[in-house]
Amino acid sequence: MKKEDKAKTAKDMALEQRAISVAEFFEKNRHLLGFDNPSKALLTVVKEAVDNSLDACEEANILPEIEVEIKELEENRYKITVEDNGPGILRDQIPRIFAKLLYGSKFHRLRQSRGQQGIGISASVLYAQLTTGHPAIIYSKPNKNGKVHVFHLKIDILKNEPEILKEDLIESGIKHPTGTKISIIIEGKYIQRYHSPYEYIKQTAIVNPWAHIKYKSPTGEVFDFPRAVNKLSKRPKEIKPHPYGVELGILIRMLKSTKSRNISAFLQNEFSRVGANSAEEICRLAGIDLTRKPQSLTHEEQEKLLKAMQRVKLMRPPTDCLSPIGEELLREGLSKEINAEFITTITRDPSVYRGIPFQIEAGIAYGGELKKNEETGEQAKLMRFANKIPLLYDPSGCAITKAVSSIRWRRYGLEQSGNALPRGPVIILVHIASAWVPYTSESKEAIANYPEIIKEIKLAVQECARRMLMYIRKQTRVKRETQRLSIFENYIPLIIENAKELAGIKTKIDIQPIIEKVVKKDLVAHESKGKENN
Amino acid sequence: MKKEDKAKTAKDMALEQRAISVAEFFEKNRHLLGFDNPSKALLTVVKEAVDNSLDACEEANILPEIEVEIKELEENRYKITVEDNGPGILRDQIPRIFAKLLYGSKFHRLRQSRGQQGIGISASVLYAQLTTGHPAIIYSKPNKNGKVHVFHLKIDILKNEPEILKEDLIESGIKHPTGTKISIIIEGKYIQRYHSPYEYIKQTAIVNPWAHIKYKSPTGEVFDFPRAVNKLSKRPKEIKPHPYGVELGILIRMLKSTKSRNISAFLQNEFSRVGANSAEEICRLAGIDLTRKPQSLTHEEQEKLLKAMQRVKLMRPPTDCLSPIGEELLREGLSKEINAEFITTITRDPSVYRGIPFQIEAGIAYGGELKKNEETGEQAKLMRFANKIPLLYDPSGCAITKAVSSIRWRRYGLEQSGNALPRGPVIILVHIASAWVPYTSESKEAIANYPEIIKEIKLAVQECARRMLMYIRKQTRVKRETQRLSIFENYIPLIIENAKELAGIKTKIDIQPIIEKVVKKDLVAHESKGKENN
Repeated sequence: MKKEDKAKTAKDMALEQRAISVAEFFEKNRHLLGFDNPSKALLTVVKEAVDNSLDACEEANILPEIEVEIKELEENRYKITVEDNGPGILRDQIPRIFAKLLYGSKFHRLRQSRGQQGIGISASVLYAQLTTGHPAIIYSKPNKNGKVHVFHLKIDILKNEPEILKEDLIESGIKHPTGTKISIIIEGKYIQRYHSPYEYIKQTAIVNPWAHIKYKSPTGEVFDFPRAVNKLSKRPKEIKPHPYGVELGILIRMLKSTKSRNISAFLQNEFSRVGANSAEEICRLAGIDLTRKPQSLTHEEQEKLLKAMQRVKLMRPPTDCLSPIGEELLREGLSKEINAEFITTITRDPSVYRGIPFQIEAGIAYGGELKKNEETGEQAKLMRFANKIPLLYDPSGCAITKAVSSIRWRRYGLEQSGNALPRGPVIILVHIASAWVPYTSESKEAIANYPEIIKEIKLAVQECARRMLMYIRKQTRVKRETQRLSIFENYIPLIIENAKELAGIKTKIDIQPIIEKVVKKDLVAHESKGKENN
Repeated sequence: MKKEDKAKTAKDMALEQRAISVAEFFEKNRHLLGFDNPSKALLTVVKEAVDNSLDACEEANILPEIEVEIKELEENRYKITVEDNGPGILRDQIPRIFAKLLYGSKFHRLRQSRGQQGIGISASVLYAQLTTGHPAIIYSKPNKNGKVHVFHLKIDILKNEPEILKEDLIESGIKHPTGTKISIIIEGKYIQRYHSPYEYIKQTAIVNPWAHIKYKSPTGEVFDFPRAVNKLSKRPKEIKPHPYGVELGILIRMLKSTKSRNISAFLQNEFSRVGANSAEEICRLAGIDLTRKPQSLTHEEQEKLLKAMQRVKLMRPPTDCLSPIGEELLREGLSKEINAEFITTITRDPSVYRGIPFQIEAGIAYGGELKKNEETGEQAKLMRFANKIPLLYDPSGCAITKAVSSIRWRRYGLEQSGNALPRGPVIILVHIASAWVPYTSESKEAIANYPEIIKEIKLAVQECARRMLMYIRKQTRVKRETQRLSIFENYIPLIIENAKELAGIKTKIDIQPIIEKVVKKDLVAHESKGKENN
């Protein structure tokens, strides 16, 4: 009888228990990181590298110059190279940034950035080594006058630690004064349709108009996405957590590890929007003395403190941790992309979910070249973005789709069946900017269903839809008035003749233009009155 | 100027980089583990505890006796207790099993089980400590004649290691000879509708008919789900990976760490379905000598070896690592649950995705009490299961939904709009059993879209649908024939009268039943002929 056939005791089972490294975990669950299939894997590698480059450039206040090249080495095997003019990476940090999962600077801070998990680029390295066995090659030049560090890196899967295969210091390899270049060989598949690297880069260019991106595709075509503005968007600032968003477990940990000597200082130092007065009120509500040592609180007091923190009236968290695209740039992006009759965009005021600031932007493009959709009865195209990253996969699992589909589009003049996206000559764009985007998975494809977020998206899109409806109505009215006017015009000569006769006028003065002017003025006045009543 | 306002150099950034513990990662991303909202969190804790109990009982060959209690302590705060009669857990293992993420016995083996990540139950403990600050209390009795170990556990989040608050050895606390009990206090919300703990336990009982489950709800109701059979299903066995499913990175790691002295032995010892002949053929195809040391292969040779392993003809992986429910028990489960006119079930032969065996089972229940759906035009109800666990959330992201929706249901007599689920008086059940279920997220809500899996699901459901169509057609035919028969019956007395007259019979023999018998026999023969032609 083989070992696994017999009934097991607790002792047998204990022998089988062991720890799993996070690299092993994600190697086996690579679909969680966006490596479900070869075409998606290719896109994911491009995406992670470009997102990192954009983040690094913006942090260093450098207008991004990014070059992406995808080269087919053999069937289903591609070399992806992404180079930027960012600040570069110090030698000692290179191995861990690229070859250790869950390592980075963005996880522990509250501030809008593309990356947030410290997992994307090292997952790409993991995928390369899993599918082709090749190390990632990294070039980094952190000093204008320095040399270029080159690393050949793999991940020691069982330890989740970098494995350095080769290290070198060379003269060239980076074409800008500072910068980083990554080169990865993966098993992949190149597609030219909807979920293509081209589509990803194009949409990225729309919402990052300050970036200059060059892309060389596997078929050898070179695409240039030039910069539209020569100024980076306002850099987001790091903020402290807001009392409304903190949870008991985290508060307990903060109380334990704080350097503040008393509760009052603790509240003021570690949270945003808490001043001396608010701290006093919180303590009063919680029945805790202001001067108590944070470490001395009992469990019951910790719970009371949390409840008081969430009951006291405080300002919303500061929103300078956010960096929206802005209504104007969003409109420019859409105009550049879509030849529509009517485009409207909106940037809503920041809002808060679980104490974390976020901000919704939306846009609608209507008519024009989109009219071709009307004939085929196609659904509107929904473009989703989070922290200036296009989301190409998993629309059905995304709060953006849910929010947009839940709008009653018939009210805004579009067809809709059930809870689907509307049908009509429309593109809808939604962007969520947040200090922490609640993605539904590590592969950053969809936004989790927080009610606060859904509500804000609906409000933003409804406002755009309302403006679109006004435009459609105005178009209809203009059409109708034009028709009415032409009817009047038919009668004008007759009226003139009669009027002349009645007045006994026999001059050659042409009064037709005068009458037309009067009639039209009246119609216009009538129209604007109609508008106000709407 | 504050630090974060100024443009950063590579040096500034290096100071901000640091490692993230996997516990921190999941604390912040708890929605990935099924803790998106309070009602789902409550369900997830029940689910993780019950799944673990069922797995432990089956491994120890014990008919499961499971008790679940959910108690409301105060508003939005619940205590969940799950006790089983499993083998218990050895003292030393208790802290890590319940208070360290990514720790377990199921991750590193290929064999069907409910748990597979070593993450579910410790994530529940993490969630409890995050939301209420309370430790989990674990009771374990691994020896019939021994005492009960009690632990009060939290997780040290920054290290992802157990924190033992209290340990004790007591006389009572477990009511069975051996067993485990967990008690957790969380912030949650109790709902009684579709995604309720009741629904989860009921569906679990359907596909685990050898389990006896008692459930006490927060409202004090006690539900008893008795055992339907007194025999556990065949226990799945552990298998080795199949050459077709291995990837280069993993092969390289295996080659490095194997104890086999040469390639031939390596192939035979570490993989399933590779004997001496196959090993020889693989080496011949790869151009590698059979006697080479596994560690001595160059990268090029490693690649060649993999290609050869995947090109050589091998038997499919052994499927005794699977434990399907079986057609009969599945039918019983459906019958117990649904009062339908017609029920059919199917267990397909095992198949393989990425070298991992899986097996699809499906069932359709039609008509009867489900006919009420027909009037409202509701969609068919789809019940999804993976390794005998009900999947209640995220239907739209699931390969099962995708496969079922992609069937052209009009061919099978049901209404369908677009690519939606069919409409009609139907419940469709799909179960995927696999040595490794490719969930789309750690919270085990949906199956990833592997084409092989989608294909098998479609084939299984289509076969059930075909049988349903035959039943529907037969019903229609029976109706029609009954109508025809009644027409004949109207004429029979007339025929008899005429026949009697013609024959000059004046007896009182009633020949009507004789004629009726002949006529009906003919009709039945006609009908079965029609069946064959279908």
